[in-house]
Amino acid sequence: MSSHSLLLTATRMTDATSHAATADLGLAAAIARDAADPLAPLRARFEIPEDVIYLDGNSLGVLPKGVAARVAATVDDEWGNGLIRSWNTAGWIDLPRRVGGRIAPLVGAAPDCVVAADSTTVNLFKVVSAALALRPDRTRIVTETRNFPTDNYIAEGVIRQCGARHSLVHVDDPRDIPAALDRDVAVLMLTHVNYRDGSLHDMEALTRAAHDAGALVVWDLAHSAGALPVDLAGCDADFAVGCGYKYLNGGPGAPAFLYVAPRHHGGFRQPLSGWFGHSDPFDFAPRYDAAGDIGQYLCGTPPVLSMVALDAALDVWDEVNMLAVRTKSQALTSYFIDLVETRCAGQGLSLISPRDAAARGSQVSFSHEAGGYAIISALIADGVIGDFRAPDVLRFGFTPLYTRFTDVWHAVDRLAAIMEEGRWDRPEFHARKAVT
Amino acid sequence: MSSHSLLLTATRMTDATSHAATADLGLAAAIARDAADPLAPLRARFEIPEDVIYLDGNSLGVLPKGVAARVAATVDDEWGNGLIRSWNTAGWIDLPRRVGGRIAPLVGAAPDCVVAADSTTVNLFKVVSAALALRPDRTRIVTETRNFPTDNYIAEGVIRQCGARHSLVHVDDPRDIPAALDRDVAVLMLTHVNYRDGSLHDMEALTRAAHDAGALVVWDLAHSAGALPVDLAGCDADFAVGCGYKYLNGGPGAPAFLYVAPRHHGGFRQPLSGWFGHSDPFDFAPRYDAAGDIGQYLCGTPPVLSMVALDAALDVWDEVNMLAVRTKSQALTSYFIDLVETRCAGQGLSLISPRDAAARGSQVSFSHEAGGYAIISALIADGVIGDFRAPDVLRFGFTPLYTRFTDVWHAVDRLAAIMEEGRWDRPEFHARKAVT
Repeated sequence: MSSHSLLLTATRMTDATSHAATADLGLAAAIARDAADPLAPLRARFEIPEDVIYLDGNSLGVLPKGVAARVAATVDDEWGNGLIRSWNTAGWIDLPRRVGGRIAPLVGAAPDCVVAADSTTVNLFKVVSAALALRPDRTRIVTETRNFPTDNYIAEGVIRQCGARHSLVHVDDPRDIPAALDRDVAVLMLTHVNYRDGSLHDMEALTRAAHDAGALVVWDLAHSAGALPVDLAGCDADFAVGCGYKYLNGGPGAPAFLYVAPRHHGGFRQPLSGWFGHSDPFDFAPRYDAAGDIGQYLCGTPPVLSMVALDAALDVWDEVNMLAVRTKSQALTSYFIDLVETRCAGQGLSLISPRDAAARGSQVSFSHEAGGYAIISALIADGVIGDFRAPDVLRFGFTPLYTRFTDVWHAVDRLAAIMEEGRWDRPEFHARKAVT
Repeated sequence: MSSHSLLLTATRMTDATSHAATADLGLAAAIARDAADPLAPLRARFEIPEDVIYLDGNSLGVLPKGVAARVAATVDDEWGNGLIRSWNTAGWIDLPRRVGGRIAPLVGAAPDCVVAADSTTVNLFKVVSAALALRPDRTRIVTETRNFPTDNYIAEGVIRQCGARHSLVHVDDPRDIPAALDRDVAVLMLTHVNYRDGSLHDMEALTRAAHDAGALVVWDLAHSAGALPVDLAGCDADFAVGCGYKYLNGGPGAPAFLYVAPRHHGGFRQPLSGWFGHSDPFDFAPRYDAAGDIGQYLCGTPPVLSMVALDAALDVWDEVNMLAVRTKSQALTSYFIDLVETRCAGQGLSLISPRDAAARGSQVSFSHEAGGYAIISALIADGVIGDFRAPDVLRFGFTPLYTRFTDVWHAVDRLAAIMEEGRWDRPEFHARKAVT
């Protein structure tokens, strides 16, 4: 199916199914919505265990078919037989640019503006440093208090390393961000979709506000790339980073990506000046000479096995229209909210995500004062995987490529049973593990 | 076999075989040396293509048996079925410390002083930054002009980021290093075994010289870890970094490792302050609070697929004594030098590695004015894989775990034929590729 016809079908589906959602919360209606879902065939492209309903693709995406074979071929043939020659013959040396170029259209970027490399956190260090260097006369980085913590930790690290002449401004209420953009702000650093409540920033408006104040903007797309349409070039964004292992399904700890607007490719400003970012890495020149393009944001040798898994995981996107993804995502999350608020009414679950589908990403979070962690644990024991975020948040991700309306229905059916029966309030569900 | 008996056997072997090396350069003698090699059984632990003689394990180690199955199980079972739960159930969250703890004994460190993470280059940025922070009143980093370029590039990056109040001193002649250690030197940053000529620094003496001058020392162990005994704790080293994909056989772009002496674990000084180095990453606290131990040198989410390959590759070391490795390494490299200088005499190949086995690592390099690149290319075409380093160096690595004396003999036999027949001097062997 072409992108265009997918889009039209998805648009029609929304009109039909949004009516169904308010009209009928029964299982038969969910089955009908799956039958009408133009993205439904994509689920067959993934290996999904039959005994789980997976609502945590925003933390770790499921295994795409084809990845295991690609990784095995890389281990056995490229490494085992090709050995060092595979840097050339298997194209390992090109992976960071090639994989970046494949991610680019998913975030509204030209292929030569994105590389896959390192972790999101390390990449953020590079681009925040570069952004500060571009505004040498300004001393503030503006972020949100509720931003994903590692982003703010990295801004602290950049500031400490640069001699502490900068400061990090934590804005509590997102509505106050524009007012915080005074003439001393060098960088506005935000996460597009909030990790905790799924609320979505207006990238275009906030980028414009930053530029109007003479500041640059760094977007973290961890919960955006692959979840909803992003238009970095159209919004005139300066820098972005994003995650390979959430909606892009690249596998645990997959390499991250970064974006730099073409106007910032000239000069060289990021401090992780390793040999993979050199203009001629194998010339072994004694002094650093940065590649003139996006390659200057590479640093060390890429983790090839993890990188080929991400590369293979990206195959599915060749036939996906991001507007259709967005349409289904909004239908799934709205349906989940309707179901929970109907089936679990009076059980102490409070929606903390925006009720307006246009104002949230592809996740829905509820808070529960006494049992956030325990309810998620009880759900996992019942085969429904969501996750917990301290102190009291139940977080559910909806990946439109493989989540069905019937998955949503069964997940809430089990949640309702757990709540009604009080089953979550057992000691074993309150005992904490390191990660959920 | 116990470590002790391995060591005794290896010592006896050296006495016997060093005599044989000078006495007999025929193939029969090589076969006899393999038969007497106590490490010979370890070769069966690796998948080595039958049609190549691999003398490039110092660039990318061969595939250990067991790695493919471990990676496949991680993809299919841990990721595919376990999904997000595997961070706990499969122990992914512990990988950086656990793998680091397994590398520790190979470099003379306590297990809680090493983590596996990121690339060697990124790790170097962390430890050089930390070392500078520990000597705030000093402004110089001393390195060698001939150090591996990316190390010096990273020192440039740290200096630029810290406001350019520091300078990088390039020492041309290694003998001049102690004299360069004046009272303004904060950090001495060296690579233990030089990537180009294989020459080996005296880690203990240079560390003492640095400390006597009030400076700290950072060692790059890229060509040491797994190649020869290293005693970081015994030498009182401050910081070290090293590579997972050379002598540790962790696969292309395997995660690197870093070492920090226990006395520097207190406080927090490295700028890549990501959530994996936080005292409680899943508390999602708004401000960074560093883990009090080596964990504070972690940054972002580790690349799990690449990390488990390294973990599995380390299995072989459980039964290896590093002194036996060193003994065989010296025998192999001396044998190679003897063979080349005898069989290729008058062909323009000049030894640039130290002739004294005690002064070099596990590699041997020759220069050739006109044909360095072309000779390596012709050798690769004949199934002998070494590598080229600009402008004129032929580099050969000898991995004692899987390189046989007969491999060395056959490699030189083919090299001698290529040189005698002038076969290297064909246009196709002069055409450059990105990496060799």
